[in-house]
Amino acid sequence: MRRIVLHYFDMYARAETSRMILNYVGAPFLDLRYDMNTEWPDAKNDEKFEMGKLPCLEIDGKILIQSGSIERFLCREFGLYPKDNYSIYLTESLRDIKEDFFNNRLKYLMVLKDRAGWDKWSEEELPKMLKAIEKRFIANGNKNFFVGSSPTLGDFAIFFMVHDFMIRKKAPKRMSEILISSAPKLIDFAENFKNTSPLFLDYMENREDLPF
Amino acid sequence: MRRIVLHYFDMYARAETSRMILNYVGAPFLDLRYDMNTEWPDAKNDEKFEMGKLPCLEIDGKILIQSGSIERFLCREFGLYPKDNYSIYLTESLRDIKEDFFNNRLKYLMVLKDRAGWDKWSEEELPKMLKAIEKRFIANGNKNFFVGSSPTLGDFAIFFMVHDFMIRKKAPKRMSEILISSAPKLIDFAENFKNTSPLFLDYMENREDLPF
Repeated sequence: MRRIVLHYFDMYARAETSRMILNYVGAPFLDLRYDMNTEWPDAKNDEKFEMGKLPCLEIDGKILIQSGSIERFLCREFGLYPKDNYSIYLTESLRDIKEDFFNNRLKYLMVLKDRAGWDKWSEEELPKMLKAIEKRFIANGNKNFFVGSSPTLGDFAIFFMVHDFMIRKKAPKRMSEILISSAPKLIDFAENFKNTSPLFLDYMENREDLPF
Repeated sequence: MRRIVLHYFDMYARAETSRMILNYVGAPFLDLRYDMNTEWPDAKNDEKFEMGKLPCLEIDGKILIQSGSIERFLCREFGLYPKDNYSIYLTESLRDIKEDFFNNRLKYLMVLKDRAGWDKWSEEELPKMLKAIEKRFIANGNKNFFVGSSPTLGDFAIFFMVHDFMIRKKAPKRMSEILISSAPKLIDFAENFKNTSPLFLDYMENREDLPF
């Protein structure tokens, strides 16, 4: 059996999409979660961590870094990738759009600590982003997936964004309101997508409920 | 002939890597640069701009967004991509590492306007990043390229980072000092890589010299 280890902290953030992908396809992996304060400061000095940053994915004796590169690698490895160049672009850009959302949230809430700035961005920019994503979903014409008729990288990215930040109980109510008023079909997508893999559904129903 | 239009502003930033790729392979394209204040506010309302943001790449009647997704698309399209999954990871993660550099710079200089914070990051984090990149370059054992023996996405990303932010005349002297003291072989790489395509060399020697 392949040895797969995902090294990260006990949070969703930059590893949860990879966890979702691995659970979706039923690939056994060690989900190693370091305590950021007591364990990681020592562990990070191990030279196997190329830049002393997480997440890292250990697979086939190699260690991969950078969450986006890890997610793309995993999706290619497990057949969750389109074949033609434009479809690859479509699925990859959905992941990059999700990253824009994530980075804006970090910028306002963590870097600037500017709650009002985040609220303004959520009111003014987020609806445009969600509408554009919904438009792509409708254009593809499949009720489960964003690109073609099988799961690909972008589905996991948008599912993570919509489900974990806007739909689940721990998500701020205002986020859910913005989603409903601007792109309600993304709620259908999240519900449908979750049900395309029993293993994934099981993971989503039983994973630890973390704040972020 | 294919119609290729790159829509952006008159700056390097998130379009210059794509310009480098297109010039490297000699693909004719319209390098459309909007004035951010007088032209873009109106132009952005054209529905062909999916989210009202730049850069956008128009190609074969499609419009692509997200700089990373555009760069990967272009490199695949023009044969600047490895074949096996791990090599693809290697070249893509170099691009993501460059993006980390770029985003940290933006965070300190543009978002926080914290010059001292950027100086501290440059002294403490940047050398580790540069050393790790140099280690990959040495490990590949090719004097021109980072992955295998032909140009791929990661070469353009690292060239952009090293050349435009650390080597060229307009780059801050301190950046060049950090590069020399922590990863001098990346200077060799930049010099060698520039000379692997006469069209690219010509572009680099004659492009407009912009501040960023």
